[in-house]
Amino acid sequence: MPENAMVRAHSINRSPEKGQMMDGRNSRKADHVGKQRRETTFDKVALEAARRWKRLDLDKARAELFHQRARDNAATYRRNIESYIGTVDTPVGLAGPLRINGRNGTVIYQVPLATTEAALVASYQRGSRLITAAGGCNVRVLDQGVSRTPMFAFEGLVEAERFARFITDHSGDLNAVVAKITSHGRLIGVRPVVEGNHVYVDLRFRTGDASGQNMVTFAADAVCKAILEQAPVKPEHWFLEANFSGDKKASSKTLGDVRGKRVATDIYIPRELVRQRLHTTPERMVDYWYAGALGGVMSGTTGIQGHFANGLAALYLACGQDVACVAESATGMTRFERTAENDLYASVTLPNIMVGTVGGGTGLPSAKACLDILGLAGAGNSIALAEVCAAIVLAGELSIVGALCSGDFATAHLSLSRGESMNKNG
Amino acid sequence: MPENAMVRAHSINRSPEKGQMMDGRNSRKADHVGKQRRETTFDKVALEAARRWKRLDLDKARAELFHQRARDNAATYRRNIESYIGTVDTPVGLAGPLRINGRNGTVIYQVPLATTEAALVASYQRGSRLITAAGGCNVRVLDQGVSRTPMFAFEGLVEAERFARFITDHSGDLNAVVAKITSHGRLIGVRPVVEGNHVYVDLRFRTGDASGQNMVTFAADAVCKAILEQAPVKPEHWFLEANFSGDKKASSKTLGDVRGKRVATDIYIPRELVRQRLHTTPERMVDYWYAGALGGVMSGTTGIQGHFANGLAALYLACGQDVACVAESATGMTRFERTAENDLYASVTLPNIMVGTVGGGTGLPSAKACLDILGLAGAGNSIALAEVCAAIVLAGELSIVGALCSGDFATAHLSLSRGESMNKNG
Amino acid sequence: MPENAMVRAHSINRSPEKGQMMDGRNSRKADHVGKQRRETTFDKVALEAARRWKRLDLDKARAELFHQRARDNAATYRRNIESYIGTVDTPVGLAGPLRINGRNGTVIYQVPLATTEAALVASYQRGSRLITAAGGCNVRVLDQGVSRTPMFAFEGLVEAERFARFITDHSGDLNAVVAKITSHGRLIGVRPVVEGNHVYVDLRFRTGDASGQNMVTFAADAVCKAILEQAPVKPEHWFLEANFSGDKKASSKTLGDVRGKRVATDIYIPRELVRQRLHTTPERMVDYWYAGALGGVMSGTTGIQGHFANGLAALYLACGQDVACVAESATGMTRFERTAENDLYASVTLPNIMVGTVGGGTGLPSAKACLDILGLAGAGNSIALAEVCAAIVLAGELSIVGALCSGDFATAHLSLSRGESMNKNG
Amino acid sequence: MPENAMVRAHSINRSPEKGQMMDGRNSRKADHVGKQRRETTFDKVALEAARRWKRLDLDKARAELFHQRARDNAATYRRNIESYIGTVDTPVGLAGPLRINGRNGTVIYQVPLATTEAALVASYQRGSRLITAAGGCNVRVLDQGVSRTPMFAFEGLVEAERFARFITDHSGDLNAVVAKITSHGRLIGVRPVVEGNHVYVDLRFRTGDASGQNMVTFAADAVCKAILEQAPVKPEHWFLEANFSGDKKASSKTLGDVRGKRVATDIYIPRELVRQRLHTTPERMVDYWYAGALGGVMSGTTGIQGHFANGLAALYLACGQDVACVAESATGMTRFERTAENDLYASVTLPNIMVGTVGGGTGLPSAKACLDILGLAGAGNSIALAEVCAAIVLAGELSIVGALCSGDFATAHLSLSRGESMNKNG
Repeated sequence: MPENAMVRAHSINRSPEKGQMMDGRNSRKADHVGKQRRETTFDKVALEAARRWKRLDLDKARAELFHQRARDNAATYRRNIESYIGTVDTPVGLAGPLRINGRNGTVIYQVPLATTEAALVASYQRGSRLITAAGGCNVRVLDQGVSRTPMFAFEGLVEAERFARFITDHSGDLNAVVAKITSHGRLIGVRPVVEGNHVYVDLRFRTGDASGQNMVTFAADAVCKAILEQAPVKPEHWFLEANFSGDKKASSKTLGDVRGKRVATDIYIPRELVRQRLHTTPERMVDYWYAGALGGVMSGTTGIQGHFANGLAALYLACGQDVACVAESATGMTRFERTAENDLYASVTLPNIMVGTVGGGTGLPSAKACLDILGLAGAGNSIALAEVCAAIVLAGELSIVGALCSGDFATAHLSLSRGESMNKNG
Repeated sequence: MPENAMVRAHSINRSPEKGQMMDGRNSRKADHVGKQRRETTFDKVALEAARRWKRLDLDKARAELFHQRARDNAATYRRNIESYIGTVDTPVGLAGPLRINGRNGTVIYQVPLATTEAALVASYQRGSRLITAAGGCNVRVLDQGVSRTPMFAFEGLVEAERFARFITDHSGDLNAVVAKITSHGRLIGVRPVVEGNHVYVDLRFRTGDASGQNMVTFAADAVCKAILEQAPVKPEHWFLEANFSGDKKASSKTLGDVRGKRVATDIYIPRELVRQRLHTTPERMVDYWYAGALGGVMSGTTGIQGHFANGLAALYLACGQDVACVAESATGMTRFERTAENDLYASVTLPNIMVGTVGGGTGLPSAKACLDILGLAGAGNSIALAEVCAAIVLAGELSIVGALCSGDFATAHLSLSRGESMNKNG
Repeated sequence: MPENAMVRAHSINRSPEKGQMMDGRNSRKADHVGKQRRETTFDKVALEAARRWKRLDLDKARAELFHQRARDNAATYRRNIESYIGTVDTPVGLAGPLRINGRNGTVIYQVPLATTEAALVASYQRGSRLITAAGGCNVRVLDQGVSRTPMFAFEGLVEAERFARFITDHSGDLNAVVAKITSHGRLIGVRPVVEGNHVYVDLRFRTGDASGQNMVTFAADAVCKAILEQAPVKPEHWFLEANFSGDKKASSKTLGDVRGKRVATDIYIPRELVRQRLHTTPERMVDYWYAGALGGVMSGTTGIQGHFANGLAALYLACGQDVACVAESATGMTRFERTAENDLYASVTLPNIMVGTVGGGTGLPSAKACLDILGLAGAGNSIALAEVCAAIVLAGELSIVGALCSGDFATAHLSLSRGESMNKNG
Repeated sequence: MPENAMVRAHSINRSPEKGQMMDGRNSRKADHVGKQRRETTFDKVALEAARRWKRLDLDKARAELFHQRARDNAATYRRNIESYIGTVDTPVGLAGPLRINGRNGTVIYQVPLATTEAALVASYQRGSRLITAAGGCNVRVLDQGVSRTPMFAFEGLVEAERFARFITDHSGDLNAVVAKITSHGRLIGVRPVVEGNHVYVDLRFRTGDASGQNMVTFAADAVCKAILEQAPVKPEHWFLEANFSGDKKASSKTLGDVRGKRVATDIYIPRELVRQRLHTTPERMVDYWYAGALGGVMSGTTGIQGHFANGLAALYLACGQDVACVAESATGMTRFERTAENDLYASVTLPNIMVGTVGGGTGLPSAKACLDILGLAGAGNSIALAEVCAAIVLAGELSIVGALCSGDFATAHLSLSRGESMNKNG
């Protein structure tokens, strides 16, 4: 849930994510209970949707959104939507093969991308094939952590500073509080930051294979209450989240640190491959990199990159990730250099990949299917999914810059947006 | 198309957007031709998808993505996707009534939001009803313009400065070039910016009712070529886009200016309504605003806001907008103030709304259906759609901050993510 | 005056800057009047300072700050300081020769730099000599303009938007208002920016050879009053400056635009010179540039640069500029590239140089002396002074990066901070 | 020294700062040696300056810069300047009384401010007196630490990640290395940040009462060499500083963290005092705060503040601090709120105060005199000096906003810049 990222949760006895992430022994029983509940809710969800359409009185729209499949799946979405009226379809294309040398050794992926923007899949495919032809890209997840940042307001700075010192001195005790709330989350950092009479507390968590926004909300709530019980000085008011976490926003704070997963990838591409596949040279691509780096900096963007948002939005949408997180994930650093041998070195660093393979929308039918194409559905796969994010983003950076350098891609684009196929391998 | 935002287009005789935006006289003929083409391409698109699934060999995934509806619609997507393998479903909920006092007077909307994140629709609905109960929000589109920013690199600064002066002196001549390319786009600004031996040129366009990234690419290409023909000094190389436009990225440049549409909305809400609907007070909401404003600023975000990305992603996805644009659109300023009468003043300003009601994915079946729910499909409606964006974002800011102040929403959230309905009106 | 940059001026009949910038015919008379006034004020300023020291009762400090020279000059400072107690000394070193190919052709400067930081002058000197050995750097002032940004607050967005439209429609009439206030300032831009019920107005001025913060304050005040008289809708309150101008602050808004003077410089340096003077190679300097560019970006700085602040602070202090403006001036872009011939290309772009050669502290004895060393005292010289700023900053970037690449400079630094001289030319 | 902040120091046997900070027992001997050296260098420094003036051939400038006092003090500056030609004078005014409730209880200061900008001292004085009349401001130094950020470049990401892991695992061993270099500096943090094949290492130090840029440079050099000796994988190249530290630049990284000293101050001011001293109301000042906060954010500045740079530049210059550091210090957060009783709450938070009371320029005659006025010369006083920075900055924010709200100050300003005194207490 994106929302409760900013919501104070009062009753946290039964976390919804716990159900989604419970361990093997109980899952059969849970499935059974789930099925019963689904059946009872089915009529209700579908019936309410039908009632809404009656009020809307738009037959053609109803046919497109509330067709048989949307009616059949109605109950499936009951934990993921309110005021349900149906589903929208987004076409999916496949980009690959994409060869990644990551934590699990070398894996070759076919990457599902959901978009309505012509030429997007073709471009990422071209980049993926280039990477694969060059032997694959190296990828590493460098750091992990999701913040929730409550704020406590005091009468004045003097009290605020005392409270901050208390937190610093007792931060070690707080993980026990979290352990009672979740078996998957873990508190890995507690850092108070004072501004006037405000104390922001950067609570950082590991969230297992879930993206984790819900988990950190519930855990942070428990941590705050434990702090409040013992603190020698009480705040005048406090909020469970006060916008210092970077949630749903590009932030400089994250750029040199982490939110979600910090992941990087790099590759050396021989000039001959650059010529064959991108119809340009490493020198020219480095010329472009300079142009784009300075252009981005002069426009006041966060980081230096070309179009991270395109690939991430398409992959997040296909795989049931929170698409609104593109706002925070589409930041980072692309770097192209010319080697001494006049080949191309390219790297991409993403400090803020918010992905999970359990929880959120990942269990819904379409998302599960796309994760299955990647072979990454379910627990144990979130790091590999972050690796795919980095690699596909690198593919996109290489392809777009190649296109800007050569002009080749334009012809392809015009053909593609007319629905024609291409003869060339681009 | 997000991609060709950064692609140099060589042959621009037949712009795909022209087809989508052609006027009434020709549309019947076009439909006829379109139908013929669709039929011939049908087999091809569906057959190729089937071939891809054969290689993937994943029956369950195939059933979820490439079901009958996805096969039937295959040809429909031929201009919007490559390497098609099917569609993903995203559930849609309805938030409303949302009363807007905008350019067309007062209109009451039901807003379709596509998301898999529990509680999101409920939260926007709560905010929408609050706005409506307070008499609706005022909304104004303040400015319009989409930039494409080519860069020309010279031997040195001396030549760069001479070239920039030439452009400044001849900018008046360039709109004639654009007029030959598109009847919907218009060049409204030409501003060269020199950095060392680089000359970035900020070409700004009106794009009619299209989001316009394609249009400005083709038009900018023509403008650049016209400049190059006549310039007294030639660049060593140039690129059609060099990352100074803010395309697909949160940028400070846009914050005090415009990209796409700059739109704002505001409202006065009596304290009694705040109490009834949000279970808190204007004072406390202003306390939160301070907390969130300083928290955001200390994290180095672009603008001051809570969670613009949530509402925009859900609305863009429902209505066939380019979801990757959330990366640039989810910036701006939320402001809450306490009035002399202790009521609440709230405003939201969005400098970078990228929406269209023609072109891109807006003509696809689901998107068309959602735009029809709003009554905003087709030409003449892009300004009203931007107004809806601002109003729904305001609804979300009010609701989330109310929830953070009162804690009420948390209970609702827990219920909602368990698929239970709520009894209270929250 | 830095202060009144943010101060609303009510009575503007006699601008102090007008006196400082009056033309030749009247200057003798003014000098005469000035001398009379100085004599009468002398006793007062010095006597008051003496009285303050009596209260402080610190003989040793008094001897260092309120020595004979500080007493003698007391009246000289009467327009530049309040509650005067004496003067502080800052040592000045000379960096040069620095060869500049600018607007006035080729000029070779010796640049006075005031600092207490060891090795600073030596480093800028090394860079200056390198530039000179390579034939000098090309410098161009690319744009000029100083903003004052009043803000008008209305009941709501609807009124704000109406007011903004009125300003846009009538901006042409406003220069006449300015012409009555100052013969040196000129209104060159009027741009309203709406945020909620706020209308910020970016009033941009040319300020002749003055830095111009005072001038734009008085002129903006007159413009605002003229607007208020005629506007069809009245604000609830307004402020003469509302922090949107970038005054005394690094701002992204300025980076791709201008505040004060936008000035750039570039140079090609043969690899043999890089080796001889900096004891490194162009390749290695480009390696450093990448490291520093990404490092800066990841730390969330405004622009990409090494240490602009050092040279600018030292030059501003020596030449009577407003040293607080270093906060805004020390932003911009440094770029190093390797040429096809493996030589070094280097450029520096400074969007925000705030310098004047009349007004402010430029007429005080020390400042006048330093400007005389440059040959740039008085009217007609502000563009050349901005050129010196850019060139000395380039010298500093080359030298520091050379030192970081080679390590040579460290030895020099240790010697210098011990007061020993160096044998080598570094 | 600002310079060697970015310089690799090879020979670090005898740190210059060690001499400046040595403990009591040896200081007499050092003074003796110092005196001898000063005498021998005297002729040399002065003679060389005279020779430079001969070449310049500017008698009037020489008289102003190289007067008797500048000749007499020549040797004094030998560790602080190269290519010496004399001194510039900057007038100093006194702002106070300024009452501070800080670490050492309540202290009332008279604050020396060096500037040539009319009305600056008067404005800070007005603010200081207001603070004092309201009972003084509370001030706290919240955190301390100065970073040096070397960067190590590897063949690829795989090696970079391995190196980063090695550093994380062995960070505990590194403080022993620092202990050999300096008795005043202490390594308090080691954080590797990977970007592609780059590893930036954020080395954070406590620097005692010195500003510490030199100290951290020498210490970081030793740390890097220790790392390189033992690391299991060697970099292709490395730099002692790679621009990730925020040195001499406003940075977002520092805003929610610390560089130098993070210091905050706050105060409650009764509305009657606001009326009497600032001729306005708390409500109106909060109106302004909103205007300025949003204005600053829309211009893309780092933090939210009015004119920190003015007070900091004047105080740094008076007290022998590195004036170039104004570029990094003039960032932070000003906050004004209206209390339930309609009084004013005001706070200022400065994350990046770079001050010392030993080393750098603090021992030079003028600086020592100004520190003596504050009673803060020498070891043990840097925290109190940071407190003065915060309090004087708060004074300036209150005064300028008061002036913008009331318009009173403008009259004063005009009088002051004409050298006339004021009758009112403003």
